Amino acid sequence: MSSARLSQGDVLRMSSLFVRTLREDPAEAEVASHKLLVRAGYIRRAAPGIYSWLPLGLRVLAKIEAIVREEMTAIGGQEVHFPALLPREPYEATGRWEEYGPNLFRLKDRKEADYLLAPTHEEMFALLVKDLYSSYKDLPVILFQIQTKYRDEARPRAGLIRGREFVMKDSYSFDVRDEGLEVSYQKHREAYEKIFTRLGLDYVIVSAMSGAMGGSRSEEFLSPSAIGEDTFVRSPGGYAANVEAVVTPVPEAIPYDDAPAAHVEDTPDTPTIATLVDLANEKFPRPDRPWTAADTLKNVVLALRHPDGTREVVVVGVPGDREVDLKRVEAALSPAEPEAATDEDFARFPQLVKGYIGPQALGPQGEQVEGPDGEKVPAVRYLLDPRVVPGTRWITGANEQGRHVFDLVAGRDFTSDGTVEAAEVRPGDPAPDGSGPLELARGIEMGHIFQLGRKYAEALGLQVLDENGKQAVVTMGSYGVGVTRALAALAEANHDDKGLAWPAHVAPAHVHLVATGKDAAVFDAAAALADDLAARGVEVLYDDRPKVSPGVKFKDAELLGAPLIVVVGKGLADGLVEVRPRAGEAEQLPVAEAAAAVAERVATLLA
Amino acid sequence: MSSARLSQGDVLRMSSLFVRTLREDPAEAEVASHKLLVRAGYIRRAAPGIYSWLPLGLRVLAKIEAIVREEMTAIGGQEVHFPALLPREPYEATGRWEEYGPNLFRLKDRKEADYLLAPTHEEMFALLVKDLYSSYKDLPVILFQIQTKYRDEARPRAGLIRGREFVMKDSYSFDVRDEGLEVSYQKHREAYEKIFTRLGLDYVIVSAMSGAMGGSRSEEFLSPSAIGEDTFVRSPGGYAANVEAVVTPVPEAIPYDDAPAAHVEDTPDTPTIATLVDLANEKFPRPDRPWTAADTLKNVVLALRHPDGTREVVVVGVPGDREVDLKRVEAALSPAEPEAATDEDFARFPQLVKGYIGPQALGPQGEQVEGPDGEKVPAVRYLLDPRVVPGTRWITGANEQGRHVFDLVAGRDFTSDGTVEAAEVRPGDPAPDGSGPLELARGIEMGHIFQLGRKYAEALGLQVLDENGKQAVVTMGSYGVGVTRALAALAEANHDDKGLAWPAHVAPAHVHLVATGKDAAVFDAAAALADDLAARGVEVLYDDRPKVSPGVKFKDAELLGAPLIVVVGKGLADGLVEVRPRAGEAEQLPVAEAAAAVAERVATLLA
Repeated sequence: MSSARLSQGDVLRMSSLFVRTLREDPAEAEVASHKLLVRAGYIRRAAPGIYSWLPLGLRVLAKIEAIVREEMTAIGGQEVHFPALLPREPYEATGRWEEYGPNLFRLKDRKEADYLLAPTHEEMFALLVKDLYSSYKDLPVILFQIQTKYRDEARPRAGLIRGREFVMKDSYSFDVRDEGLEVSYQKHREAYEKIFTRLGLDYVIVSAMSGAMGGSRSEEFLSPSAIGEDTFVRSPGGYAANVEAVVTPVPEAIPYDDAPAAHVEDTPDTPTIATLVDLANEKFPRPDRPWTAADTLKNVVLALRHPDGTREVVVVGVPGDREVDLKRVEAALSPAEPEAATDEDFARFPQLVKGYIGPQALGPQGEQVEGPDGEKVPAVRYLLDPRVVPGTRWITGANEQGRHVFDLVAGRDFTSDGTVEAAEVRPGDPAPDGSGPLELARGIEMGHIFQLGRKYAEALGLQVLDENGKQAVVTMGSYGVGVTRALAALAEANHDDKGLAWPAHVAPAHVHLVATGKDAAVFDAAAALADDLAARGVEVLYDDRPKVSPGVKFKDAELLGAPLIVVVGKGLADGLVEVRPRAGEAEQLPVAEAAAAVAERVATLLA
Repeated sequence: MSSARLSQGDVLRMSSLFVRTLREDPAEAEVASHKLLVRAGYIRRAAPGIYSWLPLGLRVLAKIEAIVREEMTAIGGQEVHFPALLPREPYEATGRWEEYGPNLFRLKDRKEADYLLAPTHEEMFALLVKDLYSSYKDLPVILFQIQTKYRDEARPRAGLIRGREFVMKDSYSFDVRDEGLEVSYQKHREAYEKIFTRLGLDYVIVSAMSGAMGGSRSEEFLSPSAIGEDTFVRSPGGYAANVEAVVTPVPEAIPYDDAPAAHVEDTPDTPTIATLVDLANEKFPRPDRPWTAADTLKNVVLALRHPDGTREVVVVGVPGDREVDLKRVEAALSPAEPEAATDEDFARFPQLVKGYIGPQALGPQGEQVEGPDGEKVPAVRYLLDPRVVPGTRWITGANEQGRHVFDLVAGRDFTSDGTVEAAEVRPGDPAPDGSGPLELARGIEMGHIFQLGRKYAEALGLQVLDENGKQAVVTMGSYGVGVTRALAALAEANHDDKGLAWPAHVAPAHVHLVATGKDAAVFDAAAALADDLAARGVEVLYDDRPKVSPGVKFKDAELLGAPLIVVVGKGLADGLVEVRPRAGEAEQLPVAEAAAAVAERVATLLA
């Protein structure tokens, strides 16, 4: 994406600036950043999840890009630029042509050759390094680009936060040894800390899942925000993870020699787990303690869309006091995409009695089980919550209308096709590392760093001669910053009900200078002040519109969000101009001192 | 496209720079810029007509972008940025969704909605101005972007010169009155002159056809180059035009009352026009002067591919001493694309007797004519060269094997469905404005400026209230600079057999500093000189590779093409370093003075 020139002081005049402010929120906008960036004339929607950048928006974007570029250069990153339109073959070689499923924009050229709009560039960087380099002496190398990316999101939302065309900084590291990858990874981690600190964004670094990217370790940089799409957890002891990456501590197995035999019972009028638990405690009480919802085993039917287009029905068993978290399932079973099962899915498996599904009608995958009329039907794959360890006793469906089975013991009475991190994480759950109870919060993912390892290099034949003259597969890291998303996160974190309130480093201008009234002397003085400020290196947005009321001008200044507002108006008769921070107290300054004083405040804000 | 930071002095070290030079030309490269940019490690091919940018290439590109940006800002242009991925509807409204034919990359999103990769953005800019502006007071406005464009070329070639993904600066002007458009157009014309002058590129401004863009006046900025794809003409009197835009001066009609009657003759053994003319002069001589090839009327069968996918057979009649120029036909009949007729095309029209096609079997379009066996067949559209005015007498096909018709008089014996600028332009042809004989040359199209008028604004409903409070349709201009193509044109114009030789303003570095030998003192002195130069604002490419021979280093320096080469080597023992321009004489300077002297030369080159 193009960078507007970063001016060392300039004057933008509202009378000719290509901007129009709106008093009403755009209909499709749900979140503050989206509403305000459109209302303030920074962006406009071109298609779902696709935006055009107006002059003020482009200036902010250019400043963010410049900060990212500087910090990437500081860790030795070298800037390159790849095409967005790429041939299928490299992505075919790594399996991602298929794995991306419908998230990938695919197209054909006039010769019917397959192309894609790249969502990320691991393959191309690996092939370029393979093309240029052949020895361990050439490594390590860190390459980066700031480039437009594409992703055909199922639900583009929240303006720039989840778009279909967006700007990313992506970088890739190449090392011979694992220790080298660790160094490159740490360099990026530190560079990202500097980037988000300079941008003035709060961030949390959390462990994350690698998803379609593959590889071993990965961490996300989240900006805490109620409107964020990512849920993360933190413990008092310092554990932090994306909720998808939270690993459930597995309880120890329980001896079940003395457990009562399983027994099927009529359970009429128990449409909910709560009513089932009440009935259980009334009619079939446990001797040691009352049954709770956590003693019920809820079997949820899902359909998985696989990248090759097939649809698989699976059943996920979780304790009845927890919901299934589809995002956790998605992360766990990636690249398959889960969704709720439809009536058609149920129709394919007559053994699934809605509301009464029990483990004994499920799995093992690939085998056959008994259907409702005693016939043999293909088994459905059955995945269990890690808490369902051998010896745990459950109330669950008996695969018959109106009946449940009690004291069904895991390991004795049923098994599964494996475990899955499907159950929701709840506040108070223990951290997997024992560092205390988890709290949950939401955040916007602004950065993601991955230790990819050798997956891509192996698929694409990226090897170099090592110190011993032998071919060694290169190990890679992949690192992204969502540049347009960071801009939205900044807007989310820096606004009030009147409008945007940019940190000085990324504001489209440092000073919003307003001339009020109709007095030519006022406009002359304001124009002179604007030029004086620009000469001092200050970026000035000067509202010189002759026939616009002071009220409208002040509203616009607060909406547009420059950090300092300067007003030249009635006070000029007394030799005074007004200066105030975007959300602070006004102060009167002698006009002769105004330029120097304002420039000094700008310098302080930028320090 | 992303701009690398424009450094105020820096040092790139060859030992770690992501670059590899090649001694051999890449197999697919035909032209010098392509060969050298690949060999010098500036770009790499990612797919046909699609390139990746390596660090040195990106630096040159960033400098070109910066110059373009400055000059656009200087004429009041405001920078914006549009998506490349756009919905079909706006392009449908103006007809370009179809008109672009196979040159447009089209795709569908996951909801089966139609999208395209934009080749140019007239529609989107018009809609944005419509969205923001509503009054003549808001105009004029000039908006620009530097952005990645897409065009599915049938024959991508010559590296960056005709690519499928490329960077353009495109800008658009919006005015209420025609006079305003003229002003905006002239501003762009002058800005482009400054841009190409600053880039150090020779250019010629030529009248051009508007093609798929539509509109009235347009001019191209061509860089004269033997490998250019555009042919242009110039006259001694200052006329200059793209060859497609040359209008044939129409001769006056000739009275034909005394002309002999047409007569069909056997013309055996006349496989070529020359043999036909010889036979004519021998057997059927003209009384006034000999027949020449210019007296024969050659009827060429073409097939037009229309944007809606239909294929139309047409016949084009030109004087037999000229070839049909398909590019001129294409420009004249745009958006239809002409190609040679196939046997299948001939088979559809039995009246077309190959080698003996005459006007009497052709046209008028939509009617029926007599076929070879006397049956009625649909007429083929017949278009004539403008020289075929009433009264001209022709030898042409008689629509029978082995026979021609003589003294066939235009206007008396045949008519056509219209004229077409199909015949080639030849050196010595008269300029249409009477300014003398034309000379032909080739050039690379680097810029194109269009007065679009109201075509797009009308199609998209872009109106504003004028001074009288009435809705007025806005008039638009559209202006492009091929940024990546300009880089290639610079490489074409600035190289020798050893490599590239950049003008200082766009070179990836000002100085290529080479340290030779193995002496640590040499490398220490060179490193100190590099730092000293950088501190003085010089961009240094420092070849610090320890085990590379001087010969290889010098070859690389000449291939990479920085304007000054500085060598620290053996001479250091005598306190001397060598300084020479890329293609000039070497000079020895005392090491203590080298930094200041070299910095001064750089300043001179940049002045």
